[in-house]
Amino acid sequence: MQQPRNLVVAQSGGPTPVINNSLRGIIETARDIEAIGTVYGARHGIEGVLKEELLDLSAQPPEEIALLRFTPAAGSIGTCRYKLKPGQTEDYERVIEVLRAHNVGYFLYIGGNDSMDTAHKIANLAHARGLDLVAVGVPKTIDNDVGDSAFKIIDHTPGFGSVAKYWMHMVQNANEENDGSCPADPVLVLQAMGRKIGFIPAAARLADPERQMPLQIYLAEKPIPLEQLADQVNDQLRDSGRCVVVVSEGLNLGSLGEVKDSFGHTSFSSSQLTVAQMIVNHLNRCGLAVKGSARGNVSGTDQRHSMAYASAVDLEEAYRVGQKAAELAAAGQSGFMATILREPGPLYSVRYDKVPLGEVANSERTFPAHWIAPSGCDVTDDFVRYARPLVGEDMISLPMVDGRQRLTRLRPRYAEQKLPAYVPQAERKK
Amino acid sequence: MQQPRNLVVAQSGGPTPVINNSLRGIIETARDIEAIGTVYGARHGIEGVLKEELLDLSAQPPEEIALLRFTPAAGSIGTCRYKLKPGQTEDYERVIEVLRAHNVGYFLYIGGNDSMDTAHKIANLAHARGLDLVAVGVPKTIDNDVGDSAFKIIDHTPGFGSVAKYWMHMVQNANEENDGSCPADPVLVLQAMGRKIGFIPAAARLADPERQMPLQIYLAEKPIPLEQLADQVNDQLRDSGRCVVVVSEGLNLGSLGEVKDSFGHTSFSSSQLTVAQMIVNHLNRCGLAVKGSARGNVSGTDQRHSMAYASAVDLEEAYRVGQKAAELAAAGQSGFMATILREPGPLYSVRYDKVPLGEVANSERTFPAHWIAPSGCDVTDDFVRYARPLVGEDMISLPMVDGRQRLTRLRPRYAEQKLPAYVPQAERKK
Repeated sequence: MQQPRNLVVAQSGGPTPVINNSLRGIIETARDIEAIGTVYGARHGIEGVLKEELLDLSAQPPEEIALLRFTPAAGSIGTCRYKLKPGQTEDYERVIEVLRAHNVGYFLYIGGNDSMDTAHKIANLAHARGLDLVAVGVPKTIDNDVGDSAFKIIDHTPGFGSVAKYWMHMVQNANEENDGSCPADPVLVLQAMGRKIGFIPAAARLADPERQMPLQIYLAEKPIPLEQLADQVNDQLRDSGRCVVVVSEGLNLGSLGEVKDSFGHTSFSSSQLTVAQMIVNHLNRCGLAVKGSARGNVSGTDQRHSMAYASAVDLEEAYRVGQKAAELAAAGQSGFMATILREPGPLYSVRYDKVPLGEVANSERTFPAHWIAPSGCDVTDDFVRYARPLVGEDMISLPMVDGRQRLTRLRPRYAEQKLPAYVPQAERKK
Repeated sequence: MQQPRNLVVAQSGGPTPVINNSLRGIIETARDIEAIGTVYGARHGIEGVLKEELLDLSAQPPEEIALLRFTPAAGSIGTCRYKLKPGQTEDYERVIEVLRAHNVGYFLYIGGNDSMDTAHKIANLAHARGLDLVAVGVPKTIDNDVGDSAFKIIDHTPGFGSVAKYWMHMVQNANEENDGSCPADPVLVLQAMGRKIGFIPAAARLADPERQMPLQIYLAEKPIPLEQLADQVNDQLRDSGRCVVVVSEGLNLGSLGEVKDSFGHTSFSSSQLTVAQMIVNHLNRCGLAVKGSARGNVSGTDQRHSMAYASAVDLEEAYRVGQKAAELAAAGQSGFMATILREPGPLYSVRYDKVPLGEVANSERTFPAHWIAPSGCDVTDDFVRYARPLVGEDMISLPMVDGRQRLTRLRPRYAEQKLPAYVPQAERKK
């Protein structure tokens, strides 16, 4: 029989509430596969590979691995925003060197489009350097922007369903706040993550599929001049007396939405205002169609680390996609990403499959134009039908000890370092 | 037997996740008291009394009343920020007139210090005008600033326990985010509500009573120059590599924390930055002691309307204090507020009692100086012992239908209007 070879898993980019459950899927699946030896987690993503900081995940108590299901974000092995750029050849060679030194035959990279590109390049370089390495990608991103607009590469990314659920609850509750407080604050502006991609704010519609709330949704894919947005909000105020406005953090509001310095130049300093602040300020400066004032909430990283809102469906799929990736690795399927594809038919079901990393790396997904309602401030029922199954049914139960969440606490057991210390290229002093 | 007389309940100020459970306590208790006839909810607080908009709460389906337990904020009957100021004598007379027209013998006002003052004045005026009215106050505020610093008037206000629980979970999860993302974002600044009162940010310590996280807490009661705050954060970065910073929204950061306009004047325009933005901007402008950058979250109204984080203890106490108020009303105890007092001893228990409204109205509570740690960026164990029982143990279960929260939907059944229309004084055109 072939000697088992070790597996390294690394995470990249912003975390999600369910990213650790993909990690758990990998660890628990690898445990039962003879060809896979020790599972190492690279501490803080590819930086941990470069610095040879490999946490021994096989040596952890099984209950701590099980608790990864209920541990949000990436506190377990960490993530990073360090990117292996094409020119950083020393970094690439170092990755191969570290993997070789630790008898690594499997490299699993959890991340978005960029990470799939990196995994692809590592697989190719390993092949060129004669290292027998199987590189497999594991999709993850709250933004749901991995893959193609036809949803053929992946139907949705693990992480999106939980953030969609956060927004469904947020808007349900915020609507109560807005209704109850409307004599004073008839406008409540809620800003969602997702940069220039609108899937997250679109999920606000899940709070009200019957369209009974005075809810307007503005996605980054459809820029709107601030004056026009204000007009539409005021029309809603005349109709309903109040308005809940959900916006993409990357919404382009035209010239009025730019912050100018005292010389009239557009300001992009660190003090620039959020989209929500710009809208609130403009509405309050120009006056509302009813008495009272506008106020805004800017949701931050809590969108991607609020474990209480994790979707049971998302958790399950995150686990299964990690499991699939470990199985692909053991089967020698290098150069693929594990993926989730939706089965046709009226009932929601998915299958786990594989797509070539190169195909993922070269794809791009924005919110489909045909899912934006003609009004420009809503999404269509087709989107609701797409997103509804992803948030699941009930709230999940969290393991609690003494009133607090019981989160995974991994022991600091690291692989012995075998190579000289290394400073990643992008961190070197010029 | 005496003829039953009707009851009007109104809410004032910012809502909480449990305010509707006090309302439910009043309605369900009044239902069984013969002396109390119909229970009316003034739509949008005292404005609803002035405008004679009285929602018939006795005519609602009992299951909708029961669901008030799980309905956050004040969408049910609404709240307002309209204040009856001493000079608004017409408004005061109108309140008496409306209450008289609807045979109201009981007036219950749910709110903070200001509301207790208003209730007190209404009770006095009714007495002077020969209206036999029992006015009783029901405490409510997330800020926990009602009462006195000795906690003799009230131990804590309904609403605070749930917001404290929100912050406990928020910081637990944010710490995972910060730990996992620290190579890129080693500083995470979290801004809490509570204006100039520090009880809410103080609750962040409940996430980590053993002080294992690199957590710093800055309360409004202890202003700190921005440079010194930055130094303390950088010291933490040198020790721990990362730092989670929780701040009061009303923290005074000294001269550097003021936003100046182009003439060098302090700017208090609508575009002013939040405390969290000022701290993040300053840290990023001056550079951190480790690589990476600071980022911030500004929690908004979600703190007071996230039903998932409601504390079971807080829910229970909010109900009981509403019940107590209805009982006080029925017993003719005008001029009192129902209150929660903590029993001595090691196990947490409370009793429900009454305090004179005048005493509450003239009291003021800030975060006690002796609960701020000598470091100036933490709270003491005495505060943890005070606050810990208020957040309860587990997460509550929310009733869900089709994946969404099932919230109360009251029917629009209003009392017939008997008086000419009235424009509240503060809303009249000059």
